[in-house]
Amino acid sequence: MAPSVAVENLNPKVLKCEYAVRGEIVIHAQRLQQQLQTQPGSLPFDEILYCNIGNPQSLGQQPVTFFREVLALCDHPSLLEKEETKSLFSADAISRAKRILSTIPGRATGAYSHSQGIKGLRDAIAAGIALRDGFPANADDIFVTDGASPGVHMMMQLLLRDEKDGILCPIPQYPLYSASIALHGGTLIPYYLDEKTGWGLEISELKKQLEDARSKGIDVRALVVINPGNPTGQVLAEDNQCDIVRFCKNEGLVLLADEVYQENIYVDDKKFNSFKKIARSIGYGEDDLPLVSFQSVSKGYYGECGKRGGYMEITGFSASVREQVYKIASVNLCSNITGQILASLIMNPPKEGDESYAAYKAEKDGILQSLIHLPQKAIEAAKAAKKAPDAFYALRLLEATGIVVVPGSGFGQVPGTWHIRCTILPQEDKIPAVITRFKAFHEAFMAEYRD
Amino acid sequence: MAPSVAVENLNPKVLKCEYAVRGEIVIHAQRLQQQLQTQPGSLPFDEILYCNIGNPQSLGQQPVTFFREVLALCDHPSLLEKEETKSLFSADAISRAKRILSTIPGRATGAYSHSQGIKGLRDAIAAGIALRDGFPANADDIFVTDGASPGVHMMMQLLLRDEKDGILCPIPQYPLYSASIALHGGTLIPYYLDEKTGWGLEISELKKQLEDARSKGIDVRALVVINPGNPTGQVLAEDNQCDIVRFCKNEGLVLLADEVYQENIYVDDKKFNSFKKIARSIGYGEDDLPLVSFQSVSKGYYGECGKRGGYMEITGFSASVREQVYKIASVNLCSNITGQILASLIMNPPKEGDESYAAYKAEKDGILQSLIHLPQKAIEAAKAAKKAPDAFYALRLLEATGIVVVPGSGFGQVPGTWHIRCTILPQEDKIPAVITRFKAFHEAFMAEYRD
Repeated sequence: MAPSVAVENLNPKVLKCEYAVRGEIVIHAQRLQQQLQTQPGSLPFDEILYCNIGNPQSLGQQPVTFFREVLALCDHPSLLEKEETKSLFSADAISRAKRILSTIPGRATGAYSHSQGIKGLRDAIAAGIALRDGFPANADDIFVTDGASPGVHMMMQLLLRDEKDGILCPIPQYPLYSASIALHGGTLIPYYLDEKTGWGLEISELKKQLEDARSKGIDVRALVVINPGNPTGQVLAEDNQCDIVRFCKNEGLVLLADEVYQENIYVDDKKFNSFKKIARSIGYGEDDLPLVSFQSVSKGYYGECGKRGGYMEITGFSASVREQVYKIASVNLCSNITGQILASLIMNPPKEGDESYAAYKAEKDGILQSLIHLPQKAIEAAKAAKKAPDAFYALRLLEATGIVVVPGSGFGQVPGTWHIRCTILPQEDKIPAVITRFKAFHEAFMAEYRD
Repeated sequence: MAPSVAVENLNPKVLKCEYAVRGEIVIHAQRLQQQLQTQPGSLPFDEILYCNIGNPQSLGQQPVTFFREVLALCDHPSLLEKEETKSLFSADAISRAKRILSTIPGRATGAYSHSQGIKGLRDAIAAGIALRDGFPANADDIFVTDGASPGVHMMMQLLLRDEKDGILCPIPQYPLYSASIALHGGTLIPYYLDEKTGWGLEISELKKQLEDARSKGIDVRALVVINPGNPTGQVLAEDNQCDIVRFCKNEGLVLLADEVYQENIYVDDKKFNSFKKIARSIGYGEDDLPLVSFQSVSKGYYGECGKRGGYMEITGFSASVREQVYKIASVNLCSNITGQILASLIMNPPKEGDESYAAYKAEKDGILQSLIHLPQKAIEAAKAAKKAPDAFYALRLLEATGIVVVPGSGFGQVPGTWHIRCTILPQEDKIPAVITRFKAFHEAFMAEYRD
């Protein structure tokens, strides 16, 4: 008898699905990491550096203290009755934990919740959205999820009937979308972001790809927009967003707004606007546009990837369609309560006047500045030398190491952000020396201009 | 233009899927619960009692202290450096948290983990399985999941190509299986448990249903066995399990062993045997049987439903098939770390000699005894009256209330377990009185015979 389960008789959609950020290379890296643990010194390096996926805490980023205080108190509520707790935890973490527990039936953080998430936490998330956008948000529209990925999968499962259903996705895209569309048997319709205009999203390109897909008999169901962009980092301008919203309404598309990078904006003259805010501000209501906004505790300065928390805010779906979303959510019962609590915290962090505010703000600013900023002193030194900061960096790199890179200003970039373009084309045996010298230079540069 | 998203143009598999334990009734109950909060006294009762789903902490069951101590310390590791912590937490919880954190790269409980779960936690789970079974278990075979449900969905997604692929499922079954098979587009092949023999699983019935399905052109891919049973509570006998294992090998079926109730055995003469232990004990190795065992932190005495933790142990799959399982797991990145830690704890609870052991044992025993046992004093009183305990209970009930029920001993039941059969057929207007009298009787009975 043939093997009862073999690659040849598996679901072909599973076989077709690719997920590059967790593929073969990562599996091999994990093998090497184990080898380093069991046989230290057996490899020419002593650690694995994972640059394949945004996972800041694995690279040493510390979690925000306030968030973790609240989680620990909610995990073990009997701490709240102990005197010692007052000296171990901040007063506002204690009161926040009490408030959260009071919204959970029976204070039971180990009970299944409503399949959309605990109502009190959804109320808090909706309040955070309303404050952010200046437009009302409703707890009934919130589906709390184990990170953004399960939310995206749910929407693909809902919308995709077969390979004649298509989803418009940006290229470059985050591989979650291609993987999820393949798993659920639909067709990815690519639209290209324009690198020359800082990865701009052109409506003409959307129209072209939509018409092209329709001419092939594809029923295009939705448009995915990642804003701020991943991997491109662009922040869409308000009028561009207005055009996108109108395009979706006119073309009858669901707008799937991946907004998980809403806190990853590093320049003062750019601002995140949710697509819901944009839609409401041009007068679009529930009936005009089916819109799903995804948010995650994994991104931003919070970086709580392993906690698996997030939500989707669904507006513009009929009650009967929403019932189907609820059913999909309920088949996995509910998302994890720790992630649910975190989702409510990131949308309602400490505010001025709270005991934790100063520490929270310092931690948040420290995290955001350490990510890609050049030190302010380096920017000033560049100004003094009449160079763009990235050009200044590239020049110093060349002088110190002989390594030639191209400053991002040569390609166009989001104003106030700095890039270098570095091709990995030296001879193979030269690469280690390049990396070593690059690293030594960067450390010395950052130490020289430390703020 | 027609609405871009309407029930008529959704994925028909989603529409077909039913999930009774979270269906219409529950949605209505949640509405009523909100009404009770905003308008107390507006309904003829003052609380909603959820008997639709096993969710013990929502009904007041307290979590095991040791588990929650470890979780709180892992959530907020800086507690481990504080002097006050020693008086707030047990010594073994502190040392366990330190050990767990030492196995997590960078001690980062907020980082994405390996898609199968943190290696050190999988090592601990494998050690717990090996100790339980007396056969080796391998961390590479463990996939830590957000509860058992996502594991079941993954396997259905892997195995089901279209409606010509079938899965043998027990009837009565837990609706997760019917929902998941519908969502992934396969066919449920029912086999009936025999209520007359205490919900026994007859090989002849399996064969009959398998042959019937094959005669209709169905490719039967797998057999689901829930042991101990849900909703039936039966514990399979060892020789019955041997027959099932042989049946799966001979028929080329994947054995999907739902073993989440392994700690829910309430009688001394019944013992849980994992299907992997049974397979190994009759000499079956990796090549003989593709076998998946599901476990969950939601069941047993732990009841940590909201934490969404669990694992599946996969043996007997080829490396290339396992790669596909890994890929599906990786598309959601990883399961939540809190649930991962809990999964390692339930498989390695405190042991004799540990500081927490006495408290842990008392909590565990208290939880298991409060679930369905009759008090020992009632069992003795029944013996003295020369009655089976359930017959004794039924008689006292009749005398006190006029309510007639049938003792489970009249139907056959797992020895040492007690049942009553109570049909809900009185006239509708009599039901409230029946319930009220029943409740008053039960409380008085339990108080009279309290251990």
